[in-house]
Amino acid sequence: MASSTPVKLESKHVYSFGADAPTPPLDSSLLGGKGRGLAEMASIGLPVPPGFILTTDTCREFSKNGHHLTEEMLVEIRAAMKWLENVRGAEFGSIDNPLLVSVRSGARVSMPGMMDTILNLGLNDQSVESYAKRIGNERLAYDCYRRFIMMFSEIVHGVSRKHFEEAFHVLKLQQGIIHDHDISIANLKKSCLLFRQIHDEYCAMPFPQDAYEQLDAAIAAVFNSWDSERATLYRQLNKIPSDWGTAVNVQAMVFGNKNERSATGVAFTRDPATGTAQFYGEFLPDAQGEEVVAGIRTPHPLNTYQKLTSGSSLQSLEELMPEVYAQLHEIVIRLEKHYRDMQDIEFTVDNGQLFMLQTRTGKRTGFAAVRMAVEMLQEGLIDEKTALLRVQPNQIIQLLAPIFDTKAKTEAAQNLVGKGLNAGPGAASGRAVFTTARAVELNKKGIPVILVREEASPDDFPGMVAAQGILTTRGGSTSHAAVVARGMGKPCVVGCTELHLNDSTKTLSCGQHTIKEEDPISIDGTTGEVYFCELKTSPSEVVQVLITRTKKPEDSTTYQQYAKLMEISDKYKQLKVRTNADTPYDSAVARAFGAEGIGLCRTEHMFMDAERLNDVRRMFFSMHPEERKAAIAKLLPHQKKDFMGIFKAMEGLPVTIRLLDPPLHEFMPHNIDEINALAQLMGVSHEYLTQVRSTLEEENPMLGHRGCRLGITFPELTAMQARAIFEAAIEVFKEGKEIHPEIMVPLVAIPAELEHQLDIIKDTAQQVFAEKGVEIDYSVGTMIELPRACLLAGQIAKHADFFSFGTNDLTQTTFGISRDDSSKFVPSYVSGVSDPKNPQKNWQLLLADPFQELDRTGVGELMKIAIERGKDVNPHLHLGICGEHGGEPNSVAFCNQLGLDYVSCSPYRVPVARLAAARAALENK
Amino acid sequence: MASSTPVKLESKHVYSFGADAPTPPLDSSLLGGKGRGLAEMASIGLPVPPGFILTTDTCREFSKNGHHLTEEMLVEIRAAMKWLENVRGAEFGSIDNPLLVSVRSGARVSMPGMMDTILNLGLNDQSVESYAKRIGNERLAYDCYRRFIMMFSEIVHGVSRKHFEEAFHVLKLQQGIIHDHDISIANLKKSCLLFRQIHDEYCAMPFPQDAYEQLDAAIAAVFNSWDSERATLYRQLNKIPSDWGTAVNVQAMVFGNKNERSATGVAFTRDPATGTAQFYGEFLPDAQGEEVVAGIRTPHPLNTYQKLTSGSSLQSLEELMPEVYAQLHEIVIRLEKHYRDMQDIEFTVDNGQLFMLQTRTGKRTGFAAVRMAVEMLQEGLIDEKTALLRVQPNQIIQLLAPIFDTKAKTEAAQNLVGKGLNAGPGAASGRAVFTTARAVELNKKGIPVILVREEASPDDFPGMVAAQGILTTRGGSTSHAAVVARGMGKPCVVGCTELHLNDSTKTLSCGQHTIKEEDPISIDGTTGEVYFCELKTSPSEVVQVLITRTKKPEDSTTYQQYAKLMEISDKYKQLKVRTNADTPYDSAVARAFGAEGIGLCRTEHMFMDAERLNDVRRMFFSMHPEERKAAIAKLLPHQKKDFMGIFKAMEGLPVTIRLLDPPLHEFMPHNIDEINALAQLMGVSHEYLTQVRSTLEEENPMLGHRGCRLGITFPELTAMQARAIFEAAIEVFKEGKEIHPEIMVPLVAIPAELEHQLDIIKDTAQQVFAEKGVEIDYSVGTMIELPRACLLAGQIAKHADFFSFGTNDLTQTTFGISRDDSSKFVPSYVSGVSDPKNPQKNWQLLLADPFQELDRTGVGELMKIAIERGKDVNPHLHLGICGEHGGEPNSVAFCNQLGLDYVSCSPYRVPVARLAAARAALENK
Repeated sequence: MASSTPVKLESKHVYSFGADAPTPPLDSSLLGGKGRGLAEMASIGLPVPPGFILTTDTCREFSKNGHHLTEEMLVEIRAAMKWLENVRGAEFGSIDNPLLVSVRSGARVSMPGMMDTILNLGLNDQSVESYAKRIGNERLAYDCYRRFIMMFSEIVHGVSRKHFEEAFHVLKLQQGIIHDHDISIANLKKSCLLFRQIHDEYCAMPFPQDAYEQLDAAIAAVFNSWDSERATLYRQLNKIPSDWGTAVNVQAMVFGNKNERSATGVAFTRDPATGTAQFYGEFLPDAQGEEVVAGIRTPHPLNTYQKLTSGSSLQSLEELMPEVYAQLHEIVIRLEKHYRDMQDIEFTVDNGQLFMLQTRTGKRTGFAAVRMAVEMLQEGLIDEKTALLRVQPNQIIQLLAPIFDTKAKTEAAQNLVGKGLNAGPGAASGRAVFTTARAVELNKKGIPVILVREEASPDDFPGMVAAQGILTTRGGSTSHAAVVARGMGKPCVVGCTELHLNDSTKTLSCGQHTIKEEDPISIDGTTGEVYFCELKTSPSEVVQVLITRTKKPEDSTTYQQYAKLMEISDKYKQLKVRTNADTPYDSAVARAFGAEGIGLCRTEHMFMDAERLNDVRRMFFSMHPEERKAAIAKLLPHQKKDFMGIFKAMEGLPVTIRLLDPPLHEFMPHNIDEINALAQLMGVSHEYLTQVRSTLEEENPMLGHRGCRLGITFPELTAMQARAIFEAAIEVFKEGKEIHPEIMVPLVAIPAELEHQLDIIKDTAQQVFAEKGVEIDYSVGTMIELPRACLLAGQIAKHADFFSFGTNDLTQTTFGISRDDSSKFVPSYVSGVSDPKNPQKNWQLLLADPFQELDRTGVGELMKIAIERGKDVNPHLHLGICGEHGGEPNSVAFCNQLGLDYVSCSPYRVPVARLAAARAALENK
Repeated sequence: MASSTPVKLESKHVYSFGADAPTPPLDSSLLGGKGRGLAEMASIGLPVPPGFILTTDTCREFSKNGHHLTEEMLVEIRAAMKWLENVRGAEFGSIDNPLLVSVRSGARVSMPGMMDTILNLGLNDQSVESYAKRIGNERLAYDCYRRFIMMFSEIVHGVSRKHFEEAFHVLKLQQGIIHDHDISIANLKKSCLLFRQIHDEYCAMPFPQDAYEQLDAAIAAVFNSWDSERATLYRQLNKIPSDWGTAVNVQAMVFGNKNERSATGVAFTRDPATGTAQFYGEFLPDAQGEEVVAGIRTPHPLNTYQKLTSGSSLQSLEELMPEVYAQLHEIVIRLEKHYRDMQDIEFTVDNGQLFMLQTRTGKRTGFAAVRMAVEMLQEGLIDEKTALLRVQPNQIIQLLAPIFDTKAKTEAAQNLVGKGLNAGPGAASGRAVFTTARAVELNKKGIPVILVREEASPDDFPGMVAAQGILTTRGGSTSHAAVVARGMGKPCVVGCTELHLNDSTKTLSCGQHTIKEEDPISIDGTTGEVYFCELKTSPSEVVQVLITRTKKPEDSTTYQQYAKLMEISDKYKQLKVRTNADTPYDSAVARAFGAEGIGLCRTEHMFMDAERLNDVRRMFFSMHPEERKAAIAKLLPHQKKDFMGIFKAMEGLPVTIRLLDPPLHEFMPHNIDEINALAQLMGVSHEYLTQVRSTLEEENPMLGHRGCRLGITFPELTAMQARAIFEAAIEVFKEGKEIHPEIMVPLVAIPAELEHQLDIIKDTAQQVFAEKGVEIDYSVGTMIELPRACLLAGQIAKHADFFSFGTNDLTQTTFGISRDDSSKFVPSYVSGVSDPKNPQKNWQLLLADPFQELDRTGVGELMKIAIERGKDVNPHLHLGICGEHGGEPNSVAFCNQLGLDYVSCSPYRVPVARLAAARAALENK
């Protein structure tokens, strides 16, 4: 007989928890998230069924051992099982008194639906019979065995669940019933036989009768599931290293499907969609395991509050089992105090006895993240720094995203077809698609889609990634679809039961309203409403308060919470956050979002204006310098007017204006009509213009005649732009406004290029100052966007007041990848390239698209070199970044590490960058 | 009265030479080349008219002083003049006994025709009269004064010489004479008056009568001429720093135009065109200064040898003045022994007395450079190292350049219109152009031209740069045209007196033969022949011996000298020299030129073959992997065959094969016909193919889907190429031949890219080895051609046996300049960009085109980083370069400094690289 000694702490592969087991090291990277939660709950005395954890180290070792369990692991597993038998008073594999266990995966971070679970392991053909007798519940015993065979077949051998479900369906048809629980005991026994036959047929081997054979296979299958396609995709999307591995949790079974005094449920300590501080969850009476999240039966609300808000007519746990509810509520309050964060829990009530099966930090929407962070701070549960770390910077975007226009909704009232649960706030419109494949296909063509499913399974993950929003006709707000959508910040409506999805006719209907696949549909994840039409959107509450001024701050809780979070962000951040803006309007918007200046004002957009474009073209096509000068002179007042507007909008803050940058060919007439029009204007022949145009065409425009190369070839252009800036600055200054113009020379590769342009700028400044009788302060710097500029930064810094890293171009040249063309292969580098000779192997060549997230190793080192050399020569050198990376949180964190003075990003990313900068400052300490 | 003390050595600005002056420090960087030569000749007792030198430091100080002479300079100049007056027994500015001087420029290195000279300075309206009386030669005195006014006006005030020449021409017409020396004394005096009037009119000031005013203005003008347009252009072309400055030489006049016992001449201690060890030169009796090189009068040969070889009927110096000739010959022998190099000298015979006016190292053609180096070595005059340093690596190209085909010449005999002096060997055909402007214009359009001029002046320099060859109808082989052409290594025929160039009709004729401008013409600079037609060329002697085997080594002195130089080069060089070759033929050629392996075999050229291209296209357009595999399989035998040929040609030497590199779109069908043909072949629709093609088009192909990105997207392609290499290698190996295959993965930016490709290559190797039952050694490396690869070289080196620097792409990405598009602005960066507000200022943004000469600062630093990091991880890492720079001497020198193992270049550059490598090894010590 086994001893009752728990597995020792120094054990290499296995840690026990619950009962009399000592608390293992509470380290998620070793125990996985689920295992650590179970062990931690047990350690504070919460009711947790005992079990043990195979560590993530074991997973790595398993992989290295050719995907087999080692002898050592087997020895430890058996010892742990002996301990479990002892504390449960049952015997694993015994016919008379079998110990049943669950086998579950548990990675370091929660990967919902990605990994696999097997329940009721330990039963076989003989023991199911004696077990039924022993517990006096034949229905439970055979139902457990049936489910076990199905899960084992699916997870260990990849047999589709469909085969089992169809067989079960046939049995129900024969019996003339609809619901599973109406099935007769005889048919339930028959189903076990049928399921075994299906297993044996598809696996070409008999269903294992030996409990350890079952256990070892299940553990191996869970370890292997770490490398499954959807787990890999999830990791890549979430930047989870593939060498982390998963832990395996083996735990004594408890049964929520034992009788009417049993139940199983999932809950959040606060509402994960809105963030409201209300205990929130769902349960199913007399049900097992995955049934709640699977969304097959409509779950019951947990409490009266939730019953009222969701309008559910089902009995709540509070009503059905008031004592259990009270115990659960107490546990929930303890858990939130213990973890100081919203928890996502699973529980089972086994014949009136409550067991906790999981606790983990709950995923939440951006709205909920902000609300919880601010409210927990106000409750005194967390401090300011923790509050900042509770909101992912990108989640702020949700608070700024458009919502459906109220008027548009009223007008479209006849198209409002249903109301489901508001599982993921936000507005989404698109074509309705009914399969993941179709969602992926249309998304590739750039068509926005809404994925509509009866219930979403983990297989639907790629479709959810591809869709603008997710709608399910079944399932609750803790269902798979809801959890995943919240994680991705996508609008999501679940359990919209009024809708009927017909797979064979490919239609979605509600009473008389019917749409076909690819017809337009809109879902409001904030209210749960579904419309069979496209809907116009209007600005979010935050935007209404800050930008359109159509709402007062005091009328918007969301705005107040946003404002609070931003206030704390600004308190901790070190980086300034500027914006990339080319118009007075964009400048004003960015300023409302907290921009502390303009980091990049692109002057080329001002040239692209239809009215001015012909003057620009005239300049480049001119044969005579005089004609060129005349064309340039005509552009001056336009530029000046633009700059004045921007200086006013940014009064008191720095404004960095970049001189003309884009390739020459962008200014060329594009077709015969444009050529003819220009020829007429210039009084030259069509042929002449066509010829000039062809000489201006470039093989690789990104590496062509652009940036300061234009200003060197056409010095009059630089002089005109400098004049426009100085004249505008002086005029605004004379109106009594504080102005800080900064002139930026683009695409410098050679220090003398900057000197040349600086010479023109300084000379122009002196001329304008003399003409106007006013001198103003200004600075001149350069974009550092070429590898050579980084290397020669010391020489360049002699002539520069500031460096602004143009990381778009720097990434292009450092990698030798054109951003415009990167879509041909970069996505496959990120998602992974399959290995033809080894289908198991997936070459993930890049962890992230370097045009989205700054490449620290390559581009980052060049930036470091540039900063070091630049600062060495010019200690007062001001440093910033104005590439797209300036609004990407990981890149902002890197910029903070590098010691930049500011980041600059598009107006709507300014709040994201502010939070990212604050978090970076905290993480850097 | 002035004291006779020479200017002191510690003098800051002025050094005297000749007479009793002590020898100044013989430093060309201080005294300039001409000054140093004069001082050095004086120091070894040669007859040099006394004078003094204003140093190059003075030139720089002059510039800094706002282009004015400082008080200090003036004081020193006056002291030096006093000394000169004393040793010459004459007085500067005196009416009775005026001291006359020349003022000449003299930069550190010889810049022929670039700088300016003023003779006879010191005369004025009064002194010319008394001077005439004193020397008893009115003709000489007034001729001197006339020339002085003209030179002074031109050089100090920029008055065109034409105005003076026209006035003089009118005087001759009135007198009814043709030659200058037939002019009457009265008219000569009249010309002085006329010249003064021209001066006064154009300069709006009277011609200075004060000698010091003349001197100071002349010195300032020479200093200023350093910044003249043509001096600047010459410096840029020859990479001479613009801060070197020029010295000014002020020297007592001697007169070659005094009488029939006077003469002036230019000579080389050996023939500068062929290198033959014969004293070689030309002179004009009774002539002054620039007349010999100006090419107006046909000069006399120096000696009997030269008279015979040139077929001249004019009397030689040896005949006319045997004693002077004997003295000169003796001096020449002393000078060559003293300098141990061929000298370019100028001399004047003043009334029977010989004066040396210049000695400098003589410019020479490539042929002459090689011949002199090898012969001086054989004579024991120099050692091997010196011999190597005597030949510029690029000069070797002349020995390999095609010559006119003998048969073609025979057939074109009727078009042979004349024979001039063979001033620059080599064959050149093109359109005849008669002005520098036209030469530049046509050259810009890519049309080869031959510049035809009566005589070439320094103003023709840009035209000579633009032309394939130069032909003059007047002038000798020491004329300006000949000297400059030799310096540039261009074919040149001078003094082809049979030809008549008519400027007004724009025709060139010889008897009945007449051609118009832009008609074809050919010149043979080796023989002096001129043809009014285009001529076919045939291989050079060296190529005939080594490649076509149509000449025996013992029949070609040129070959023997080439071989000797190469033999010494190989003795001293440290770098191996490999070649870039894609075919067995190119490989064999390169091997004959001394290539020690293939550094770059581009496989894409093998794919471009019309026959194979459709299979390649099929591969990229395939919808089904099976179809793709079939297309790839069809390519295998072709590739294998190509590789076998190359392995055989390079038996025993390493062969680096680069996997497919160029942009995908290069393989696309280019027009409707090609699309239709391919569609038919593949059995798909025209529309489908057109659609696929448009998805494959790229904005910036250089930064697109190419290099290893292709091999990663299409792993079957890499597998096929690897298989072709291994199968070919094994087959050649089985024939008993030694093979060293090296496989190179292109365009790696991410270490995992190399790992991925390496995995396929290794796997393929194992498969092929198993199939064939043979294992061979091979290595796998990568091209380092992206900045990120340089930075991550440490990680890349873990998986690489070698790095080969692809400096073309590395330059593109480091600078952010596309080589294809660089012509839009890089040439102006090199030649200099004018400054609109300061026409004096010229912004030279690049010293050289970085695609021609490796950029040491930027690209070079990345190479250093890559080498350091790569070697650190993998000390056995083999290093090479395979960009175009591998055959450019300065870049080769840099590669030697970096410690690379080899350079690789095109076959015809291999000898250049060998010599460059040897010189680099010597210079590095």
